[in-house]
Formats: sequence, C-alpha cells, structure tokens
Amino acid sequence: MAVYSDDFSFEMAKGTDIVDITSRILESVESSSVKNGIVCVFSPGSTGALTTIEYEPGLVHDLGNALERIIPEFLEYRHNERWHDGNGHSHVRASLIGQSISFPLINGEIPLGTWQQVICLNLDNRSRTRKVIVQVVGE
Amino acid sequence: MAVYSDDFSFEMAKGTDIVDITSRILESVESSSVKNGIVCVFSPGSTGALTTIEYEPGLVHDLGNALERIIPEFLEYRHNERWHDGNGHSHVRASLIGQSISFPLINGEIPLGTWQQVICLNLDNRSRTRKVIVQVVGE
Amino acid sequence: MAVYSDDFSFEMAKGTDIVDITSRILESVESSSVKNGIVCVFSPGSTGALTTIEYEPGLVHDLGNALERIIPEFLEYRHNERWHDGNGHSHVRASLIGQSISFPLINGEIPLGTWQQVICLNLDNRSRTRKVIVQVVGE
Repeated sequence: MAVYSDDFSFEMAKGTDIVDITSRILESVESSSVKNGIVCVFSPGSTGALTTIEYEPGLVHDLGNALERIIPEFLEYRHNERWHDGNGHSHVRASLIGQSISFPLINGEIPLGTWQQVICLNLDNRSRTRKVIVQVVGE
Repeated sequence: MAVYSDDFSFEMAKGTDIVDITSRILESVESSSVKNGIVCVFSPGSTGALTTIEYEPGLVHDLGNALERIIPEFLEYRHNERWHDGNGHSHVRASLIGQSISFPLINGEIPLGTWQQVICLNLDNRSRTRKVIVQVVGE
Repeated sequence: MAVYSDDFSFEMAKGTDIVDITSRILESVESSSVKNGIVCVFSPGSTGALTTIEYEPGLVHDLGNALERIIPEFLEYRHNERWHDGNGHSHVRASLIGQSISFPLINGEIPLGTWQQVICLNLDNRSRTRKVIVQVVGE
C-alpha cells in the first residue's frame, strides 16, 4: 500500500470560469504508479469548486447560467456589506458545489463515463490561481 | 491493507428516477471482507447522480420536484441547441448533486443514520442502465 | 498503513444552524498519528450536512438565506403530508449539500485554503445532536 500526493496550479478568469482538469488528474495518477485504490481530488479555497460534467461549450454556459439563476450575483449578501469585495455569491455557490471529489482507481484508470470530465470552477469575481491536489491511496 | 472493487448495474426509468442502493452497497462491502477503512461509491456518467435521503415516497417526490424548480427542464439550454437531445437540465442537475460519495467503514458497517439511505438518481430524459462502483480500501 | 476512526458529537439549534468543525477534525487527525493519506469526514443523518465555507457571520447568514430561497420551508412537501413533522425542506436541502467530504492528508495537515473552514449544518426544524465521524486511512 502506498500514499502519493501531487498537485498542479493554473490561472482562472473571473466570473464563472470552468476548466477541464481530467487529463491533468490522470497524469498525476499515472505518475503515482498506484493501480488500484482511491483518488481524492481537492481544490483549496472557498470561492472555487470541483464537479464533473460533459465538457462541451453549451453545457459550460448552461451550468454558469444555472448558478446565476440559483444564486444571483446581485442580491444583498451580508458578506459584501462586511467585506466589500462583492463576492458573496461566489462563496455561497462554492459551498453548494463543494471542493472535493473521490474516485475509484481500477487497473490504473478512473472509471469516468464516456462523456464525463472533471472540472474546476473559479466562481470568484476576480481572476485566481487555483491549485488542485491529487491524493492517491492504494497499491 | 487491501483494495477491493465491486460494481452492479440496473435499469432506471427516464425523468427523475430514484432508487435505494443501500443494500447493494452493503453486499459489496460484505463481500470485500474489509472491516475498517473507506468506501468510495461512484456512478459513471454525466446525467446520473448519487446522494443520500430518507427513502420514502413523499421525499422521493419532493426531491424531484425541487430539482424541477431549481433547474427546470423547459428552459433554453445551449446544450439542447447544439445536440438536440433535450437533456441539458439533466446534465446541470447531475453536476450540482455529484456522482461520488465516500463513507467510513467501521467494524464492517457504514454508519448511516437510522432514516438515511444511499440513492442513485437517473436524471436523463431517457431510460438508462446505471452502473455503481463500490471501492473499498482498508483492512 | 493504518485505519483510524474517531468521532465527536454536539448539540445544534433548529433551523439552519452552522458550526465550524475544523479544529475538531484536526484534533481527530492529530490523534490518529497518520501523516499522509485520506481523511473521510461523514455526519450520519438525513437532515444534516457537511460542506466548507469562509466561516464569518455574514456568509453564515447568506448560506442559510440562499437555502431558504432555493428550497423554501413553506412549500407543499409530500413528506410533510405523510409524516406531519414539517421538515420536508430540511431533507431536500440535506440531500443537495451532502453529508460526506474527503480531504488529502499531507504531512499531518489538511490543505484547506486560508479562509476555508469545514462546517456542519443542522437543517432540521428542531434541535438535534449531530455526530461527525473522522476516518483516516494512510501511513
């Protein structure tokens, strides 16, 4: 049994920026040499999020659009009244989606669906460097 | 320490079909012979999801109803404009709920609440075969 | 490789009560003596939830407010018609947020963001004792 840690970072645009990180995660998993176990993917920070989607431009737009309908940017947020950074909506959206996903690792592969990619979302109202940590436990 | 993989598949109806998969997960865990560790449950695909609920018909209806209020089927989705399969809402709902849950495994048991079941949701607008993978790491 | 289990319980107020459990989780992790691996945090029950947030009073209010907008307490819920406990909204909110989060454990630390805390939510319409289980697998 082994534990392996890797991470990568990248710039993300403000607003709802959504990036496909599947291939980067698979690189980390491959470099671990672990073939079977659990892969825990985590992005630190309270205005970013991780989830999966069929990564095509239509859905990337639709997901951002849905977040704006569900948690509108221009409502009154007490966070904004206190801190005046205008990103109350970013925090609430991030809390709803979450920053952690775990996957089975089977024969060196993560069994994603054919049309399923892992995405990182920057929900902040300013550009941010997002870090993604890939933690592998297995053999 | 051991790594154990199991999976099971089943047919799900179109719309918001919700199935209790708790007993199937527990069977997989039992067949692993692992007593303590982490159980990662994952369902591949971008129009399905996993979460927990008190599985009774009222709440099963209420959850589907809430999803229809939050992410209505009949809005404009760019995914539908591009692909004409009419399931843009299914994808967005799936991205919000997620397809992965991990549980502690303690003395051979998953410590769910008394009224808490693990459910698989088919959110697609057509019937689908859903696969659930149960990955156990522990001793 | 080792598996370590710990848990702690506390009283939570009715409505949307939100408590920062970061330091309690870190205590459990420290007592495990495991330095590298995966930490799975789980709260049993179908009207509670776990996620992360920047834990400051403004955002704690904003998150509760957003949940009330998205899943209002005073709609018709079939759960309430059947069970008359008036907490249909609590269950639906809990299913959307989830009760499980996993974190990488690296050199004895969970790599949370600077302004990121792990929170437990009581979403029930009555006060509840909430239990949080911290499961560590690693070395």
